[in-house]
Amino acid sequence: MTARIALDIMGGDHAPHEIVAGALMAAGGLDVELLLVGRPREAEAELRGIDNKRIRIVPADDVISMDDHPTESVRAKPNASINVGLRLVKSGEADAFVTAGNTGASMAASLLTLGRVKGIARPALAILFPTGDSATLLLDVGANADWRPIQLVQFAHMGSSYTQKMLGLAAPRVALLSIGEEDSKGSQEVVEVNQALRNSRLNFVGNIESKDLLKGHAEVVVTDGFTGNVVIKLVEGMSDLMFGELRKVVELTPWNKAAGFILMSELRKVRRKLDYTEYGGAVLLGVDGLVVISHGRSNARAMFSAIRAAKDAVEHGVLDLVREVAAEIPAKARRGATNDAPAPTDEEDI
Amino acid sequence: MTARIALDIMGGDHAPHEIVAGALMAAGGLDVELLLVGRPREAEAELRGIDNKRIRIVPADDVISMDDHPTESVRAKPNASINVGLRLVKSGEADAFVTAGNTGASMAASLLTLGRVKGIARPALAILFPTGDSATLLLDVGANADWRPIQLVQFAHMGSSYTQKMLGLAAPRVALLSIGEEDSKGSQEVVEVNQALRNSRLNFVGNIESKDLLKGHAEVVVTDGFTGNVVIKLVEGMSDLMFGELRKVVELTPWNKAAGFILMSELRKVRRKLDYTEYGGAVLLGVDGLVVISHGRSNARAMFSAIRAAKDAVEHGVLDLVREVAAEIPAKARRGATNDAPAPTDEEDI
Repeated sequence: MTARIALDIMGGDHAPHEIVAGALMAAGGLDVELLLVGRPREAEAELRGIDNKRIRIVPADDVISMDDHPTESVRAKPNASINVGLRLVKSGEADAFVTAGNTGASMAASLLTLGRVKGIARPALAILFPTGDSATLLLDVGANADWRPIQLVQFAHMGSSYTQKMLGLAAPRVALLSIGEEDSKGSQEVVEVNQALRNSRLNFVGNIESKDLLKGHAEVVVTDGFTGNVVIKLVEGMSDLMFGELRKVVELTPWNKAAGFILMSELRKVRRKLDYTEYGGAVLLGVDGLVVISHGRSNARAMFSAIRAAKDAVEHGVLDLVREVAAEIPAKARRGATNDAPAPTDEEDI
Repeated sequence: MTARIALDIMGGDHAPHEIVAGALMAAGGLDVELLLVGRPREAEAELRGIDNKRIRIVPADDVISMDDHPTESVRAKPNASINVGLRLVKSGEADAFVTAGNTGASMAASLLTLGRVKGIARPALAILFPTGDSATLLLDVGANADWRPIQLVQFAHMGSSYTQKMLGLAAPRVALLSIGEEDSKGSQEVVEVNQALRNSRLNFVGNIESKDLLKGHAEVVVTDGFTGNVVIKLVEGMSDLMFGELRKVVELTPWNKAAGFILMSELRKVRRKLDYTEYGGAVLLGVDGLVVISHGRSNARAMFSAIRAAKDAVEHGVLDLVREVAAEIPAKARRGATNDAPAPTDEEDI
């Protein structure tokens, strides 16, 4: 069955133009139906002269901007495109929701509209990092700044199942981000997570240090949302900085310019290889519905990747898988989850 | 007065050869006296044919290796070069201790031999990050995987005073690493630190995100030892990865090779600019003595930088400054420190 993707065309730095362009790419290249959620007039302007039965506009009169307060704006603007799009998923009219809008608001609205998968204490934001020939799923990259060990154990289970399906692996290697490879290294909480993962049915390969994060030593790397967010933003900043320095070097002399010209197309490939925003956005695992949150600066190509990631997740039955995993997580962990982990409060600023 | 630096010649991947080479560079270029701490025969072999009254060998028969357990080895090997070197500082025979050895052992031995500055709950490991034209002191980069807000507030005060002296600034800008610029962003603990710094006498410029870390927006960036350690190892890993990719690009075709040849010397400069190991190692702030811990892979040039950093710290009276700061930290913070913060236990694996 063709996957039906609800797409927020009002979210992101380049909305709606690049978002709709990404939708057209997807409609042209993938077996998907697209529900473009946003202001009808802007949607129609973008679609002028285009006739494709697989693209439909779903009106949403309001917009949550990148600067709006996440939880407040979600409540104050029930008809914002993010809310309308998520209700399409809740009602079953869409199989997944894709947005490049305000990340905090998208997460808050997802929790509010879709709720959590039963047994999962907190959802996690997960991104696929390119690592040479393969990819590594890093989670959580920002859903939870405050956390408890049991939540990270659940993230590991969800991440393992997700990569099993999405990357087609029998037993994905799961690692825990820490500040030393030995099991005893890290904060007390991280050591607790390490021990729980050692005793789990997962293919746990131990701790991984951040310097090895991009080397493909594991298909899943688990961390807390504070550290994970610091990591992805640092990768982004380092990439910007290094290619900025490179540009300066190339500008120094005419010889350098010529040399830079020769190398440039290959260097751009290197940069793209390091750019996780090219790889389909972040998946919010643990909410009861499929949600893909793309980088705010996404262009048409990034939106295309995000839509494809959502389509793949639909076709691989990722949501059912997470539900199964949640039911299967060892009883002890489940008890822990129920006793220790606070249910997400709506007032919390995520 | 000439600074007397005790130098561990047995620590680091390239010991003793590169360490002694760094000492010779320092003896040749800086106004320092050097106490080379290590196995006399190896020291003498390195110094054969050299006669410099400013270099003296202090025998230490044992060595703590990079793989030894930090706290256990410090106790089991009282005559290891790290322990002997630190006792020279404790007794006043040396003004500072420099090592490229086992970081955990160096920190444990420093605490054990020198103790903490009165009023400081935990020491912090601080490194100067190159940021274009200036530098940013990042702390803690790994002394404490477990932490409390009050400790980070103390790190901010120590870091501010340190950069004031070392970079010659009237009011260094102090920032707090978090996952959003707004004061409310981050974990509960980080928000607590933010509020305490807002109410402090420091030139607190608010939260900083990791993507801006290398942009020189602040002279001091405070974070916990877990996050800080993840950050510096990720910077290291990214730098290795990117220049590795660059090397691959250059090898692709003869044209690329020629272009790479033209750019290479400038690119090496860029790499050095991003390499914090070039910038004098990490300073352990908060122990009652000056200790500089250099990267394990330090070569002669890096050791020279570390010795220079130690000499500058001696001449700027950094230790007295930290003592003053500890006495000046607002009473509330001091009470917090005494009540909340656990004294470092010797058994703790740091």
